[in-house]
Order: sequence, then C-alpha cells, then structure tokens
Amino acid sequence: MSNKTTITAERGQPIMQIERIFDAPRKDVFEIFTTQEMLEKWWSPYDQAYIEIDAREGGRWHFTAGKEVNFYGVIHEFSAPERFVQTEEFGNTGERGHVALDRYEFAELPDGKTKMTLTTTFLSVADRDFALQSGMEVGIIKSHETIDTLLKTI
Amino acid sequence: MSNKTTITAERGQPIMQIERIFDAPRKDVFEIFTTQEMLEKWWSPYDQAYIEIDAREGGRWHFTAGKEVNFYGVIHEFSAPERFVQTEEFGNTGERGHVALDRYEFAELPDGKTKMTLTTTFLSVADRDFALQSGMEVGIIKSHETIDTLLKTI
Repeated sequence: MSNKTTITAERGQPIMQIERIFDAPRKDVFEIFTTQEMLEKWWSPYDQAYIEIDAREGGRWHFTAGKEVNFYGVIHEFSAPERFVQTEEFGNTGERGHVALDRYEFAELPDGKTKMTLTTTFLSVADRDFALQSGMEVGIIKSHETIDTLLKTI
Repeated sequence: MSNKTTITAERGQPIMQIERIFDAPRKDVFEIFTTQEMLEKWWSPYDQAYIEIDAREGGRWHFTAGKEVNFYGVIHEFSAPERFVQTEEFGNTGERGHVALDRYEFAELPDGKTKMTLTTTFLSVADRDFALQSGMEVGIIKSHETIDTLLKTI
C-alpha cells in the first residue's frame, strides 16, 4: 500500500501545500529532491528531462522536458538534509514576473520514515489558481509513486 | 507637496503591496532601488548601512544596519529598468525558513513620473503579520521621502 500525497489549497489564498511521507531516511529523501542524478529519474512527466541544479545558496536551477515543461529559479537556502527554499517560474507563459516561492521541509519521523512538506506561495491568487489548474495534481502523485520505487534502490 | 505611499495588506492574506509615485524618470528610480551607491543613501533607518548587492539573476544581496537590522536574499530576475524579483529573509529571528518573495515593478507614467509597485508574498499569514507589526510602515514612508530628495540630485 502506498503513502498518500495531500495537496492543500484554500480558496482565495495564494498558498499551496503538499505533504507526503516516504518510507526512507531523511538523507535519502533529500537526495531524491536535490541531485541531478535522482531528479532525472522521477521529475519529468515525459521520458526525457533536462535537469540542471547548482545546489547551494545563490545557485540556479532549470528543469525542462519536451516543449511544454520549462521551470527555473534560484536557491535562497540550502540546508541539507532538512530544508531548501527556492524561487520558481514557469517559463512558457510569454510574460515574466509570475514567480513563486517554494519551501521544502524534510522531517524525520520516529520509525525511520520522512515527512516532506512543500509550501509554495505565489504573488497573487490568480497565479496560484493557474498552477493548480495546470493538471499538476496527477503529475505530482505519479512522481511520488516513482520516488517510492526509486527509494527502494538506494 | 509630497507623493503618498500606499501600503495594502488585506486581513488574513499573506500578501502586502506598497505603491508610490516618484517625480523622476524610470531609469533614475530603478537606479535608486538597485545600486549600492544609492541604497546606502536612503535604505537604512540609522546613519550607517552596510549594503551589498550583486545586481543580476542569481546574485545575492545583504543589507544590515546596527545590530537589529539584517536582511538578505537572492535575485531571481533583474530586468532593468522595469522589474526585479528577489527573495528576502530577516536574519535576526533565530530561526531560518521564514522567507518572503518581493516583486518590484516600475511603470512609466505619461508625465515623466514613475510608479513603483512592490508586491511581497510570505509563506504564511503569520509571517506577513510579523513583518507588518515590526513598525516598517513609518520607516518606509520616511525612506520614500528621502528618495524624493535624492532624486532631485541625480
């Protein structure tokens, strides 16, 4: 039985929160979310992903897949293995300035599992709703299931 | 008669918006907000400010004054003279992870004036309210009046 991904997005708020428990130690889960090698294996909804990440404060990241998927940003904080904070922008809207801020937190649970909490805040409710309506939910749940499989190989 | 600074912070939302018209061309106003030389002249509420800014995408910034004022972040977008987007963290809370995202926009008005709009979004309503309750309002209005004086010297 797989763990459940919870997506919380209160109506009229520019914030979205995603929570998921993974059956693996924190250092492994953190690695899954922050290394090019691991991200290439699960991040993209398509077969080919181009992942670039300079994992340090002030470092830039850029993930693309196919013609439609293009995200990039800069890293504000990189505190392995407990937290990283980054900006995020979707590069295919034709208009810059619609940026979001992501905080990923990884908490150790008593049974050797790890709880990941991603809080994303947008510059407007409209920007948050645009992201929600992109169909990201299906992709995220699928990605987390891929991560479950990957974690068994580490 | 001086221009008015408008601060909007809707109850229960993690967003804050600050608007101000300056009687100067956009390139001058942008310079005031993004160069070390200018920031040193108006940013700090105290006499001495330490300003460090690497004004480019991926660049870091760090402003301190006295023992109490300590802010830093990274620049996500730097599109002179119309917009820049950066992260912002207050360094003296004793706890990391309370980060905000700032988008500064500079719009040219028909009469050679410039409208600055700063939109800041926080990761929680509590973080936004903490910033509001810090007494920043008085400091911001005073700073904008100093900018008015500075702009006459450019």
